[in-house]
Amino acid sequence: MTETVDPRAVKDYLVGLQSRIVARLEHLDGMAFRRDPWDRPEGGGGLSCLIEEGHLLERGGVNFSHVTGASLPPSATAARPELAGRGFEAMGVSMVLHPRNPYVPTVHMNVRFLVAQKADAEPVWWFGGGMDLTPYYAFEEDAAHFHRTCSAALAPFGADYYPRFKQWCDEYFYLKHRKEPRGIGGVFFDDLSDGSFAFSFGLMQSVGDSLLPAYAPIAERRRELAYGTRERDFQAYRRGRYVEFNLVYDRGTLFGLQFAGRTESILMSLPPVVKWRYDWHPAPGTPEARLYSEFLIQRDWL
Amino acid sequence: MTETVDPRAVKDYLVGLQSRIVARLEHLDGMAFRRDPWDRPEGGGGLSCLIEEGHLLERGGVNFSHVTGASLPPSATAARPELAGRGFEAMGVSMVLHPRNPYVPTVHMNVRFLVAQKADAEPVWWFGGGMDLTPYYAFEEDAAHFHRTCSAALAPFGADYYPRFKQWCDEYFYLKHRKEPRGIGGVFFDDLSDGSFAFSFGLMQSVGDSLLPAYAPIAERRRELAYGTRERDFQAYRRGRYVEFNLVYDRGTLFGLQFAGRTESILMSLPPVVKWRYDWHPAPGTPEARLYSEFLIQRDWL
Repeated sequence: MTETVDPRAVKDYLVGLQSRIVARLEHLDGMAFRRDPWDRPEGGGGLSCLIEEGHLLERGGVNFSHVTGASLPPSATAARPELAGRGFEAMGVSMVLHPRNPYVPTVHMNVRFLVAQKADAEPVWWFGGGMDLTPYYAFEEDAAHFHRTCSAALAPFGADYYPRFKQWCDEYFYLKHRKEPRGIGGVFFDDLSDGSFAFSFGLMQSVGDSLLPAYAPIAERRRELAYGTRERDFQAYRRGRYVEFNLVYDRGTLFGLQFAGRTESILMSLPPVVKWRYDWHPAPGTPEARLYSEFLIQRDWL
Repeated sequence: MTETVDPRAVKDYLVGLQSRIVARLEHLDGMAFRRDPWDRPEGGGGLSCLIEEGHLLERGGVNFSHVTGASLPPSATAARPELAGRGFEAMGVSMVLHPRNPYVPTVHMNVRFLVAQKADAEPVWWFGGGMDLTPYYAFEEDAAHFHRTCSAALAPFGADYYPRFKQWCDEYFYLKHRKEPRGIGGVFFDDLSDGSFAFSFGLMQSVGDSLLPAYAPIAERRRELAYGTRERDFQAYRRGRYVEFNLVYDRGTLFGLQFAGRTESILMSLPPVVKWRYDWHPAPGTPEARLYSEFLIQRDWL
């Protein structure tokens, strides 16, 4: 029996998700996002929603894109060469928020869908996504809340999803040259076509829907904490790791830049102000040192 | 006849070059560099010389490294598979300076040598190197002086070296995703084993020796120009391109990070303070716009 694959339903969900997230962030921030729609001459387009110099958010983007093409590029099908040359639709929402207050963590969320079609053949499709948190200061409560929300989002789909996707996240967001995780992780998955289209779509929706409940309470309870130059400097220094990860390792970023697509939308993930300093280490016993010793390690957060 | 290949002489030259450059920069800056020697457990080591928060230099590094190994890694011999497995010595001086004053350009210089040996076979060796300038504000005089010095360094070795290596530099230091050169170029070469060892070594020395005459006069004549927040902001914004190039494209950086070697020495090339802003463009007619329209293009500077 041919399965029903409904890209239109996924697109409707993603457009709605972006809209809901932006509305809530505008409410939290008190400043409006800029909306920047764009077309891709080769097919498709998107809507970049961004904020800079906000009250809560120093820089952030919530981007929707929908790209279509007559033929999947070889670089996109390295793992599945049998798909090369198929027509495709790829769509997703990708989000990074860099708050101003160093006590509010940076957060990243992405949900995406790809379907590759060919006449007289079953469509091949998969979902991907995840979310992860990058704190500058160690609040156990925040990390546990974030992971509990991720875990709860996946629980209805099977008990093994959270531990597998948590592990996948730890492995993916790892800076090999620093021997250091990017943050405290979360969940990450790719190539998901488990069970039916409806099952996998439902799982992706559950992850997307969890971003606000996972992050908003953390932002709300840390945003008024007083900070000074020391905390801002540490934040700017740690943001350097974010840049290193995204430009050296992140597949989505590198794939996007390679296609010379919407460079400005892709690089919305980069922080507003970043500092590099040679061989810097926090003094033992400081809150900055605690981030390394207690948070930037593989840890069970539930 | 077996050619004389003298890695020791190259090493002596490189150690001396680093020392001369650092001494002159300390004199120019008024602040001492930090000297950080290191050993590589698998063979070799180096000396990182760095300055941060100097008077002229906000951040800069002049690094010497000498790496030896029993077997060239496959990634190093992709272009010459017949060398895989040979013992090797690789050495070089690599330098990036990020001045504080936005009217003083960022500069990069690198000279390097590799020799791959095997019992009962001729050693295979080559030199590489170059230097390039990344201004924030357009001074014709500075760009012309820099290129004239590069050209003069190569002229004794043949009339075609400068035009070829200038072109190579323009092609190498190009940000595809921005459709933009990193700066105004200079010269770049790799895999140089022209004529004899002595000839190629001489050429590399001439390039290395030219860094100070090419750069010091520019630093000296711009360092006292008054600047404000606007110029600092533009510098921080443009430095973002430097980060993007080095982390996305630069082969030396990516090769270094992949080996999880001296990460801090490798990333000394990154600027001290960097800003990213969405879809920013300078207002027409401003000095910032002139950088794009008159300098960030392919141009004959002689």
